[in-house]
Amino acid sequence: MPTPDLAIDFWFELASNYSYLSVMRIEALADDAGLVVRWRPFLLGPIFASLGWNTSPFNLQPQKGAYVWTDMVRQCAKYGLAWRRPSVFPRSSVLAQRVAMCAAGEPWIGAYTKAMMRANFVDDRDIGAEATVLEVLRALDLPAEAIVASAQHPDNKLRLRQQTERAAQLGIFGAPTFFVGEEMFWGNDRLDDAIELARGVR
Amino acid sequence: MPTPDLAIDFWFELASNYSYLSVMRIEALADDAGLVVRWRPFLLGPIFASLGWNTSPFNLQPQKGAYVWTDMVRQCAKYGLAWRRPSVFPRSSVLAQRVAMCAAGEPWIGAYTKAMMRANFVDDRDIGAEATVLEVLRALDLPAEAIVASAQHPDNKLRLRQQTERAAQLGIFGAPTFFVGEEMFWGNDRLDDAIELARGVR
Repeated sequence: MPTPDLAIDFWFELASNYSYLSVMRIEALADDAGLVVRWRPFLLGPIFASLGWNTSPFNLQPQKGAYVWTDMVRQCAKYGLAWRRPSVFPRSSVLAQRVAMCAAGEPWIGAYTKAMMRANFVDDRDIGAEATVLEVLRALDLPAEAIVASAQHPDNKLRLRQQTERAAQLGIFGAPTFFVGEEMFWGNDRLDDAIELARGVR
Repeated sequence: MPTPDLAIDFWFELASNYSYLSVMRIEALADDAGLVVRWRPFLLGPIFASLGWNTSPFNLQPQKGAYVWTDMVRQCAKYGLAWRRPSVFPRSSVLAQRVAMCAAGEPWIGAYTKAMMRANFVDDRDIGAEATVLEVLRALDLPAEAIVASAQHPDNKLRLRQQTERAAQLGIFGAPTFFVGEEMFWGNDRLDDAIELARGVR
């Protein structure tokens, strides 16, 4: 059993395509390294808004955006992950992330986030719709209606807002972002470096 | 001898810290893979201006900027490269890139770009000053004054402007950028993937 000290904080967004790569990879990498993953859902929207952006920078910078979809094809091929460019990007992830907030300490967090990422980036489903979230939870044999009700409780909404404020305070400006202690790593490209540092910290 | 077909196009900026990592690495990687490097200096300033930015995005987004300098320390440690955060960033690279334009087809392009990158990112020198460029060229036993005169010739200025326009047409939005045929790769993090593709294309 890893001790709670040997941990990597994983700040992710279910609307974020590069978070998709890390959600699909992090559990196996952390298990191999004997690390606990601390799941930290937050909302990118308010972070981008604080930078003056009303949507993803991939939409605001068309040339970068065009490149990103090529890069995703290559990255998914490299990691052996399925991929379909979503017909809507970014999708609203507010309800999905509220559910992730409820799930963060639960054993089904990995299965839930993977299933939602597949819905968004493989099956091109509207993860913003409550029906999609319910369907994903049901497929995992979870009490879907009760979980969504908890997710929509004002206390849980507040927790997600506070966690997003915490992300801003930590200097997070994109997703995925990893922390090992106070060391920040940005982007799926740095997941292996973060794991290496956490491993060396033992 | 590699044939000219087995090539990687290397779009770089002597003012760009992530270009520093690639300038220091690309010749050895290309040699191992039997590839020719086609050096493509361009100016990031006009590219950023077309995005509405009057300086580096690392300056415009303070949180991302703060992260980048941490990332550079780690990346340089990973690659065994010296590093000192420049006291001025980004530095003017117009003359330096005009000289790179003259050097692009010459055997001294690698030595020149490495020396300029070390001046900027290790020795914290003002690479925008003609005196620095002359000193770097002299240290390489090159006819410094004659090279700078050629670099400042209107024809060469025009060539650099045209090459920058070509970068914009190709969809380049940052540096370093690599092309293998028509496939674009952005960032030092993708240099190995670009080399892999070029190797497989043989």
